[in-house]
Amino acid sequence: MDDVEVFPIQYITREGKKDTGDAVTKELSLTVILNSRELVTLLCSPTNLNYLAIGFLASEGLLGSKAELKKIIVDARGSVVRVQTQEDKELAGGFENKRLIASSGGRSTSFHSAAGAPGPVKVESRTRVSAPEVFTLVKEFLRRSSIHRTTGGVHSAALCDARNILLFSEDIGRHNALDKIFGECILRDIPTDDRIIITSGRISSEILLKVARRGIPILISKAAPTDLGVRLASDLGVTLIGFVRGERMNVYANGWRVEVNGK
Amino acid sequence: MDDVEVFPIQYITREGKKDTGDAVTKELSLTVILNSRELVTLLCSPTNLNYLAIGFLASEGLLGSKAELKKIIVDARGSVVRVQTQEDKELAGGFENKRLIASSGGRSTSFHSAAGAPGPVKVESRTRVSAPEVFTLVKEFLRRSSIHRTTGGVHSAALCDARNILLFSEDIGRHNALDKIFGECILRDIPTDDRIIITSGRISSEILLKVARRGIPILISKAAPTDLGVRLASDLGVTLIGFVRGERMNVYANGWRVEVNGK
Repeated sequence: MDDVEVFPIQYITREGKKDTGDAVTKELSLTVILNSRELVTLLCSPTNLNYLAIGFLASEGLLGSKAELKKIIVDARGSVVRVQTQEDKELAGGFENKRLIASSGGRSTSFHSAAGAPGPVKVESRTRVSAPEVFTLVKEFLRRSSIHRTTGGVHSAALCDARNILLFSEDIGRHNALDKIFGECILRDIPTDDRIIITSGRISSEILLKVARRGIPILISKAAPTDLGVRLASDLGVTLIGFVRGERMNVYANGWRVEVNGK
Repeated sequence: MDDVEVFPIQYITREGKKDTGDAVTKELSLTVILNSRELVTLLCSPTNLNYLAIGFLASEGLLGSKAELKKIIVDARGSVVRVQTQEDKELAGGFENKRLIASSGGRSTSFHSAAGAPGPVKVESRTRVSAPEVFTLVKEFLRRSSIHRTTGGVHSAALCDARNILLFSEDIGRHNALDKIFGECILRDIPTDDRIIITSGRISSEILLKVARRGIPILISKAAPTDLGVRLASDLGVTLIGFVRGERMNVYANGWRVEVNGK
């Protein structure tokens, strides 16, 4: 695989040491250039860089739809993505001057800094999902996280309906994994209404906002949310499911979308 | 505890659902103001905000030592930290204009963006640690990660010598947990030479650089490194130990500092 490399290591136990090899996940420094302006450098896994760049721009409110795109060029070494849009929008107030550093995967958002993307609108979708469907989706999601199993170093994200995983992505950053999904949706005209997002990572305020901004009604994580994540999910109409482990889960907000025993 | 809050949740299994409560970790949006200039907003856990602010400034190369500090004020609501220094250093070239977004906990570093902190110097310390000492330290480290056990939502970091954990911190961000350690070292005059850092998080290039910049010779993680993390550890003379699980570990770089069976 392109995104892992085997390194020589010493494997040590109480008994002694052994020279062996270990598959290590790759990390790339990717510069995104929007209409000749160097916008940002993302540390990421070296796959689907076009999806990552487009998803990032959409999450930051710098790109609305595929129709606004003129050209995307990923350079041969894969360390620069150049995006040209039909109109060279003014960067939303302060994108270049404000710095927001997230707990994990820093992003500048309108919620936190009044720069960038438009604020999310309450998600009104009436879609529901049953508890067994959630357990089955998460089981399949974990099965697909193959790099994670090999190297222990990446996050995964998926777009699903109640029965199937539609898109799947992996990245060393949980924000990047999600942006790759959204970038793919934009470039391939895949709708996100009434869909489900599964993520391997913690649900912080920024992850919740990113998902709400795409109008997604149900967000599922293996991990825990933060208090801001829970509050925003309640306010923005997102069903927030965390700590899915085997056949148990916690529903933190908008539980009416989760059917239990047919109710 | 101040950094968790119990939320009402629905606990769902195949059998049915139950209304109960779950302790959720808090997330704070902290603005750091340096000499009247709004520098950055960090998403973090709401504890030891003075350590976090000072550690962040040091990691960014904006603060060298305690002697440069004039005043630190954490506002009553805990959402702003104001730091005044003796001299109002010019921000290192481009700190405000460059945006680096890390895979997890974006930071602007000299390595990636030529802004900010001075480049790290090769770590020359002759300190060693034995394999049983590593296993014992990590065991104690996991025991101390009490919030993590309760809420599943935080990272931990610790400063150690070969026998004891000297400082311990927790935060929703792995970068923040480490910056809190370094901020405490600066404010309390605790030396970091010949010490060991343990982190619960993945070792990316930025974590490695942050640790090397403080002259720390041994870095231990429960989790995996990235390829850039391994390469930088080799180049900068840092002993990099990953995937410590029970009495097994992988040594990725500079294994000569790890004693096995007295050798």
